[in-house]
Amino acid sequence: MTGAPGTVAGIDIGGTTTQAVLCSPDLDVLDRTELPTPAAEGGRVMVAAALGALRRLLDRTPARLLGVGIGAAGVVDPRAGRVLVASDSFHGWAGFPVTETVEQALGVPAFLDNDVNAFLRGEVARGAVAGATHVLGMTLGTGVGGALWLDGALYDGPHGAAGEIGHVPGFGDLPCTCGGRGHLETLASGRSLAARYAERTGRLDTAREIAGAAGRGDPDALAVYEAAGAAVARALLLTAGLLDVTTFVIGGGVGGSWSLLEPALFKTLAAEPPVSGRPLHALPSRLGGDAVALGAAARARAALT
Amino acid sequence: MTGAPGTVAGIDIGGTTTQAVLCSPDLDVLDRTELPTPAAEGGRVMVAAALGALRRLLDRTPARLLGVGIGAAGVVDPRAGRVLVASDSFHGWAGFPVTETVEQALGVPAFLDNDVNAFLRGEVARGAVAGATHVLGMTLGTGVGGALWLDGALYDGPHGAAGEIGHVPGFGDLPCTCGGRGHLETLASGRSLAARYAERTGRLDTAREIAGAAGRGDPDALAVYEAAGAAVARALLLTAGLLDVTTFVIGGGVGGSWSLLEPALFKTLAAEPPVSGRPLHALPSRLGGDAVALGAAARARAALT
Repeated sequence: MTGAPGTVAGIDIGGTTTQAVLCSPDLDVLDRTELPTPAAEGGRVMVAAALGALRRLLDRTPARLLGVGIGAAGVVDPRAGRVLVASDSFHGWAGFPVTETVEQALGVPAFLDNDVNAFLRGEVARGAVAGATHVLGMTLGTGVGGALWLDGALYDGPHGAAGEIGHVPGFGDLPCTCGGRGHLETLASGRSLAARYAERTGRLDTAREIAGAAGRGDPDALAVYEAAGAAVARALLLTAGLLDVTTFVIGGGVGGSWSLLEPALFKTLAAEPPVSGRPLHALPSRLGGDAVALGAAARARAALT
Repeated sequence: MTGAPGTVAGIDIGGTTTQAVLCSPDLDVLDRTELPTPAAEGGRVMVAAALGALRRLLDRTPARLLGVGIGAAGVVDPRAGRVLVASDSFHGWAGFPVTETVEQALGVPAFLDNDVNAFLRGEVARGAVAGATHVLGMTLGTGVGGALWLDGALYDGPHGAAGEIGHVPGFGDLPCTCGGRGHLETLASGRSLAARYAERTGRLDTAREIAGAAGRGDPDALAVYEAAGAAVARALLLTAGLLDVTTFVIGGGVGGSWSLLEPALFKTLAAEPPVSGRPLHALPSRLGGDAVALGAAARARAALT
């Protein structure tokens, strides 16, 4: 080998925060930085801010940049390197040529992926489910996202839409943000935890505040997290039945309140074991805030080798 | 080419009937026969009966037999060529060396598969979903079976147990034969249609008799088929959400009452479209009683070419 060893970068462009990491070729995180996402200012400003963060990291290392992976919320076209559909909190983001802009700025290949896919890639590469071949990943955030890892690779289905565990029926009858009813998201997202708690108490607290109240023994707060944990268990059971997947990793802000979800989750799995009889392994995210950026870097690393 | 063209055979060993077909290499059914399955008399007698049926077909054709596929109910080990777990209606069937016995008798390779997998292989090869690359197959019989076709091949998961759409939660709260609750099978199998009808009317009729009553306008009979159709629709929606599969084929005895299932099925799909927005295509079996035997032959043909 001549010169400094290479590095791969990962960028997580979230609705609130943009995070950048530099990784070794073995995906050890060597350095990281974050900044608020200028989500209202359009794709050009958002990508410029992310590139600024990444350049600060590159200025601190002698390693040569080999490639960049980017994880972004929304519906993504990985081949075109653009976001197809973004949430309301972004302006001028859908359609912006993300990978093309990054490649022109840095002169290395760039790869775009959905943030939930990137989360799962990260957890499989170096996180809670490292080395697993068949996994369902779930992010319990503002909404509920899902991604599938089958036979050692991301599985996004014939039209790129697989993994949407947050929006399948079978979880009661409450209306969902997507227009459907009885979806997992109506019980297990941050938004729905807040709505379910407000229905019980009349108080408008965030999922994080409700988690704090649950920690202090508030029975209504405990009940909404219990309902979320039981619903997540049923999502694992249906995935196990349909796909024979027995390993699960759960992240996102609500997933971070693992100790509040875990009791009802394991109680439900014990009461209704999967028909195959094989035990299910449900694990909280190990990478936390690094997962999406690390997974995006893993995507770039895999494409470059 | 020298001599007569080759033929592949398919055998469907069901709880009631054993069917054998001879197919051209293009999987046209050239000849067929059936006989009652001697299910109480053990594996040796059952396979001998199937071989007798197949020999009658072979005596009527000049074509050379290239291989045999066998579809059997229960949990199957395709590699060992044995049934691992059979239902109570079979005696001495689990553990019997099916493919070894057939290969020794006929001197050609034999392949064993689960009957629901064979059903789906048949419908993909020459049936309702011919040529589709991503399909969920469902058999609504005494119980509810399922099988997955992903990326142009049968997908049976990391432990061979994928496709069990009949035994995932999210379909109410009734107790299931498997010990679980709220599974699709509690609403859409022949056994559960009979149970649901008996709960409403006190009458102990078979699913076929209830279908007849529904045809005569019996509101209770119509209602239980309507509940089954709506439940099947929800199974399609969860499969579409999780796997991005949009093509479905539905067989089995209850599936044969398609006109009774179809209205509620399509009504539910229209009321709760999948989150991807892509339309779902639900089709009844086209091969009927030939599906399992033809699919078993397709399995043999694929392995031989």
